[in-house]
Amino acid sequence: MQFHLNGFRTGDPAVHDPAPDAGQRPSDVDVLIVGSGPTGLVLAAQLSAFPDLTVRIVEQKDGPLTLGQADGIACRSMEMFQAFGFADRVEKEAYWVNEVTFWKPDPQNPETIIRHQRVQDVEDGLSEFPHVILNQARVHDFFLEYMRNSATRLVPDYSLRLAELTVDESRRDDPSARPVTARLEPVDPASGAKAETIRARYVVGCDGARSEVRRAIGRKLKGDAANQAWGVMDVLAVTDFPDIRMKSAIHSNSEGSILVIPREGGYLARLYIELDKLNADERVASRNITVDQLIAAAQRILAPYKFEVAEVAWWSVYEIGQRLCDKFDDVEGQDSLPRVFIAGDACHTHSPKAGQGMNVSMRDGFNLGWKLAAVLRGQADPAMLHSYSEERQGVAQMLIDFDREFAKMFSARPKTSDDDAEGVDPAEFQRYFVKHGRFTAGTAIQYGPSVLTGADTHQALATGFPLGMRFHSAPVVRLSDAKPMHLGHVVEADGRWRLFAFAGTGDPTASASGLWRLCDFLADDPRSPLNRYTPRDADPDAVIDLRAVVQQGFRETEFGQMHPLLRPAKGRYGLLDYEKVFCADLKSGEDIFDMRGIDRARGAMVLVRPDQHVAHVLPLDAHAELAGFFDGFMLTRQEARAGAA
Amino acid sequence: MQFHLNGFRTGDPAVHDPAPDAGQRPSDVDVLIVGSGPTGLVLAAQLSAFPDLTVRIVEQKDGPLTLGQADGIACRSMEMFQAFGFADRVEKEAYWVNEVTFWKPDPQNPETIIRHQRVQDVEDGLSEFPHVILNQARVHDFFLEYMRNSATRLVPDYSLRLAELTVDESRRDDPSARPVTARLEPVDPASGAKAETIRARYVVGCDGARSEVRRAIGRKLKGDAANQAWGVMDVLAVTDFPDIRMKSAIHSNSEGSILVIPREGGYLARLYIELDKLNADERVASRNITVDQLIAAAQRILAPYKFEVAEVAWWSVYEIGQRLCDKFDDVEGQDSLPRVFIAGDACHTHSPKAGQGMNVSMRDGFNLGWKLAAVLRGQADPAMLHSYSEERQGVAQMLIDFDREFAKMFSARPKTSDDDAEGVDPAEFQRYFVKHGRFTAGTAIQYGPSVLTGADTHQALATGFPLGMRFHSAPVVRLSDAKPMHLGHVVEADGRWRLFAFAGTGDPTASASGLWRLCDFLADDPRSPLNRYTPRDADPDAVIDLRAVVQQGFRETEFGQMHPLLRPAKGRYGLLDYEKVFCADLKSGEDIFDMRGIDRARGAMVLVRPDQHVAHVLPLDAHAELAGFFDGFMLTRQEARAGAA
Repeated sequence: MQFHLNGFRTGDPAVHDPAPDAGQRPSDVDVLIVGSGPTGLVLAAQLSAFPDLTVRIVEQKDGPLTLGQADGIACRSMEMFQAFGFADRVEKEAYWVNEVTFWKPDPQNPETIIRHQRVQDVEDGLSEFPHVILNQARVHDFFLEYMRNSATRLVPDYSLRLAELTVDESRRDDPSARPVTARLEPVDPASGAKAETIRARYVVGCDGARSEVRRAIGRKLKGDAANQAWGVMDVLAVTDFPDIRMKSAIHSNSEGSILVIPREGGYLARLYIELDKLNADERVASRNITVDQLIAAAQRILAPYKFEVAEVAWWSVYEIGQRLCDKFDDVEGQDSLPRVFIAGDACHTHSPKAGQGMNVSMRDGFNLGWKLAAVLRGQADPAMLHSYSEERQGVAQMLIDFDREFAKMFSARPKTSDDDAEGVDPAEFQRYFVKHGRFTAGTAIQYGPSVLTGADTHQALATGFPLGMRFHSAPVVRLSDAKPMHLGHVVEADGRWRLFAFAGTGDPTASASGLWRLCDFLADDPRSPLNRYTPRDADPDAVIDLRAVVQQGFRETEFGQMHPLLRPAKGRYGLLDYEKVFCADLKSGEDIFDMRGIDRARGAMVLVRPDQHVAHVLPLDAHAELAGFFDGFMLTRQEARAGAA
Repeated sequence: MQFHLNGFRTGDPAVHDPAPDAGQRPSDVDVLIVGSGPTGLVLAAQLSAFPDLTVRIVEQKDGPLTLGQADGIACRSMEMFQAFGFADRVEKEAYWVNEVTFWKPDPQNPETIIRHQRVQDVEDGLSEFPHVILNQARVHDFFLEYMRNSATRLVPDYSLRLAELTVDESRRDDPSARPVTARLEPVDPASGAKAETIRARYVVGCDGARSEVRRAIGRKLKGDAANQAWGVMDVLAVTDFPDIRMKSAIHSNSEGSILVIPREGGYLARLYIELDKLNADERVASRNITVDQLIAAAQRILAPYKFEVAEVAWWSVYEIGQRLCDKFDDVEGQDSLPRVFIAGDACHTHSPKAGQGMNVSMRDGFNLGWKLAAVLRGQADPAMLHSYSEERQGVAQMLIDFDREFAKMFSARPKTSDDDAEGVDPAEFQRYFVKHGRFTAGTAIQYGPSVLTGADTHQALATGFPLGMRFHSAPVVRLSDAKPMHLGHVVEADGRWRLFAFAGTGDPTASASGLWRLCDFLADDPRSPLNRYTPRDADPDAVIDLRAVVQQGFRETEFGQMHPLLRPAKGRYGLLDYEKVFCADLKSGEDIFDMRGIDRARGAMVLVRPDQHVAHVLPLDAHAELAGFFDGFMLTRQEARAGAA
C-alpha cells in the first residue's frame, strides 16, 4: 500500500479523501449500472476509484444482500479481489477447498457408501490464492466498503427498478453525448425511493437472469431446456460422515448423488442433492418439493452415516440449464458505438455446482470496468468497447460447454467394479479433475488476438505468461526495502496498464543494457507511449506503470543506480517512488525467471492490462512495437478532444 | 474463524452478538482501566471478550489517538495481534523491516558516508510474522474496533482524569468486594464528560510515565538521569540516499549519528538524530531545539547525499533514560491480594530506538488480562495475580539492561580501520545484531518456574517449546479439511488454556496409544482438569482447549476414528467441532515434530497459557502431573463460591 504521497494524513489509508462532489446523485451520468449483485458491484467498485467519472448504481432490492446463494470463489476471483485490496479478508473468513473426496457404493454392501478416492482440489502453483467458499453477501460487503471508502463515496440506490430504457440513435456515435435514457421507478412507494430519469453515456445491465436491460435491448438467453432437478440446502447438521469438512462427491447405489460443499465458520455445510429427472415439460416448481424431502434424500444417500439437521440456513430447488446471449451489447457488428451492455447472469447462466456463476460474472464486470473508464477519461478510443462482448461472450460460451460436461460427469455413477461398463473409472475422475481444475479456477481463460491482445510472435521470451491469459503472479523481492512479495499484487484495480520489464543477463544499471535503453526510450522518445498518453500534469506512471524485475538478488544490485525512470518523482512534493524495481527471490528458491520461463539472456517486456490479463510479450528492444500496440487503441489528449468535439 | 455454532447468522462474523448489558457504563465495575494507550487497550480488548465481566476504560485525551509516537512492532507483538485477529491488517498496512544497513565515514573521504555492512533484520524462522513499523494510532484503531465488535461493545470514556484513588484495606482480601474507589474528573468541563466515582474490584494504571495510579499507590520510577539528547522526526523528504527505505544506522565522522526507520506507505521516514551530550543538570527542553536544526543535522550527517524535507509530519526531542518501578502492584510480599496494578510506561520507560516501549507495554497488558479474567470469572485463585508483577517486573528489568547496552552500542562509532582502537568492529555489530535480534523481536522473554510455569524436567520431549517462553508456532495441516495453517494461530485471546497433545509413534486412533489414553483420562477421570474446571453447562473446551497433533500426513489417518474428545459436540445443537486435530505438514517439508524437537517416539504434552506462553511440557502419560499443575491455581466452581462467600 502506498499513501502519504501528497502529505501525511492520519486514519485508515484505505479511506480516500472524498472528491468535491462525492456522494452526490446527479441524473446526468457517465455510467448507470442496473443491479448490485456481484457483477454490478465489481463494475461499480472499479469505476468508483475515478473521481472524474459520474456513476450511479441502482438496485431493486431494498438494501444490501444478507444471505446469498453463490458461495464458490475461484482462485482467479481471489486474484481480482487482491486488486481491490480485500483478498486477505476473504481468505481469513472463508472455507478453503483443499481436497475433494469421492464416495461410491461399497462393493461389499452396496446400500452403504465408502470413500474410494481423494484428489487435491487446486494443483500446486496454479495461483497464490486458494479456492474458497464464502457467502456471497460477504463479498458484496467488501465491494460496498471499497466503494464507500473511494474518492467518490459511491453507494447503491436501493428499491429502484428499471421501467424503461431507450437509446437516442441519432446521438449514439457522438462520444460526448448521453444518448441513453433510463426511467427508474420505486419498487415500493413506501420505500421512499423516488422515480427518476437518468441520462447516461453508458448503461450496464447487471440485473440477473430476468434482466430488464437485456429485454430493453432485445437480446435473449438461449440454451438448453432444463430437465434435471437438484435441491440445495445450507445446514447445520450433526453427522458422523467423516468428510463433512471436505468437498465430497457422493454417489449412492440407488438413492442418487450429493455434492457436499463445506462452508465458512467450521460448522455449516452446503449439500447439492440430485432429484429425479424432470419430464420435458415439467418445471421444478410444480413438484412441491420440501426441505424435509431434501433432508430425507440426503439421509438415504449418506447411509450408513447418520445425518441430523439441526438448522436449515437456506434451501432451494433448481433446474440445471445453460443459457447464453449471442452478444453482450446493443449493436450488431462494429460500425456503431455500443451504449448498453449486459453482464453476468443477464447474459449467461450455468449450473451452480461448478461454482462458476458468480466468478464468471464478476470477471465480466472487471473486463468492462477499466474499458469504460479508459474511454470516458479520454484515454482510449471508444471502439475499444466492442472488445467487451467479443472477449466475454467467447468465455461464456466456453464455460457453458464446460458446465454441460461437468454436470454430466457429476451425475455419472463411478465404476463399481472392472465389469461395470456404465460407471466412470475413478482414475478417469481424477484425470478429469486435474484437467478441468484450471478451468474451474478461472485461470485458463484466454482472450484471442485483438487490438488489446498482441500476436504471440515473442511468446517464447516469457512462456509462463501466455498472451491473453491472466498475469500469473510469482514471488519477488522489492529492491529498495528487501520486502518479499508477489509481483502480481502491484496490479491494482486502478485502471492503469503495467509494463513489466524483465531484465536480461548482465548489469541492469549499465546504460548499454536492454532495460536501461528501454527506460531511455520510454522517458525521452516522442513515440514513447508514456510521453504520448500520460497527461501533462500527471505522474509519469499515471497511465502506464513501468516496473522492472532483475535477475540479481536484492543485495547484488543498487537501487540508487537504476535508471531515473525507475525512481520517478511523483506528487506535489516530487517524492521518489521506491516501488518500481524487483529482484528474483533467490533465497526462497522461487526465481520468477525460472518459474515463468523468462528468457534469461534476452529478458522480456510483459504488458499487463488493467484487468490483469497479459496484453503483449515483446523483446526489451521492441520499442516501436510497444508504441504501435498502444497507438492501436489509445488516444492522446488532442485526439480525445477532437473525437469529443 | 469459527462461527454459526449456535445458529446461522448473517453479517460480519467478527462482530459478536451484543450481551444484554452491552455498552452500559456502570459505576460498580470488575476492572477500571486508567489510560487508553496500547497497554490499556490490550487489556481492555482482552477483557471485552467476556460478557460476564464489567469493565470501564477511561482516558484523559478527548478522543482516540490520531498520531502516535511509537511505531515499531516486534514479531512477538504481531503474534499477539494474531490472537486478536488483526495481525494480517497490520501486515498489509505496515512497513516491513527486512534488512538493516550500516553506514560509516568513507575512509577515502571521511566527510562523506559509505555503506559498509548489511544484516538481515530478523533471523529466519524466528516467527511467522515480520518485524514491522506502523503508526501507533492505527494499532489503537484495531484494538478499538475489536472492543466495539465484542459482546460487551466496550468503548473508552474520554476526557476523564483520575483525581483520587483509594483502597479500603479492610476489604482488600475479600474476593467479592470492590475495595478500590476511583474518583474521576472531567479534564475540561466543556467536553461534556461528568465527574464520577467508580467502585472497582481491580484498577489498572496504564496511564503512562506520569501515571497518577502509580503516584496513588506510592510507587516510583527509578533509574538513570538522562544526559543524552536525541531528536526524532517523521518526514516526507526528497533524497538520493539510497537506503532511505531500509532501516539504516549511519555514523558520520564528526556530525553525529542517525537511525533511519522507514515508515508505512512507501514515502514517510522516521529519523532519530543524535544531538550533543547534555550536561548533568541540563534538560533537553532548555535547549530550544527546532525542527530546522534537526533537519540541518540530518543533512550534515547524510553528506554527500542530499536530503530535502518537503513535510514534517511530527517531530520531538527527548532524553534517553531507563527507569523502572520495583513492583507493579500495590502490595508488598504475597500475603495480601493486589488490587491496583500498573503497566506499560507507568512502570518502565526505555529509549525509543530499540523499538521496545510499546511492545513491552502491550505484553504487560496481555499478561495481566487473562489473569484478571480468570480470577473474576471464578476460574483461578486470586493469589495468581501476584504473578503479574513477578513476571513482568523481571522482564522490564532485563529490557532496561538491554536497552542501556543497545543505546550505547548505537552511539558507538564503527571502526574505520584496523588501527582504530575506539571504533566498534563491523563484525562485532553483526554478531550483536544476531544475538539481540531475538530480544528485540520479543521472542526471548522467558518466565521463570512458578505456579504458572512448570519445572523443566521433561523439556527434552519438546526442545523447541522452551518452558516460560512464548509458544513458537509452526505449520501444520488440519485433518478434517486438509487446510495448511499455523498451529499457534489457534491460540486466540479468549482466556482459554491450550493443551497440545503431540502424538508419539504409531496409530493415534489406537486405544492403546498415548494420545487415546490421555483423551480417556481427560474425558472420564474425576481428577481430569477438564472435568474439575469446566462449568457444567459449558462446552468441553471452554476452559482448557485440547488439540492433538499427529505425525501422519492428513491422508494417512482418519478424522472419524479419532478419540471422541477430539470431535467434541458443542453449542445448543451439539454440533461437532472439526478443528481439534492437526497433522504434520509433510508436503511443505516443514514438519512440526522436527522443527520443534518433539520426541517422535514418546510424543509430548505442551500446555500453553492464554497469553501464548508455554506453561508446561509433560509426557503424554503424565496425567497426574497435568492435573496437579492445574490444581495449583485453578478453582472448581465450589471452591470459587466458597472463596467469595
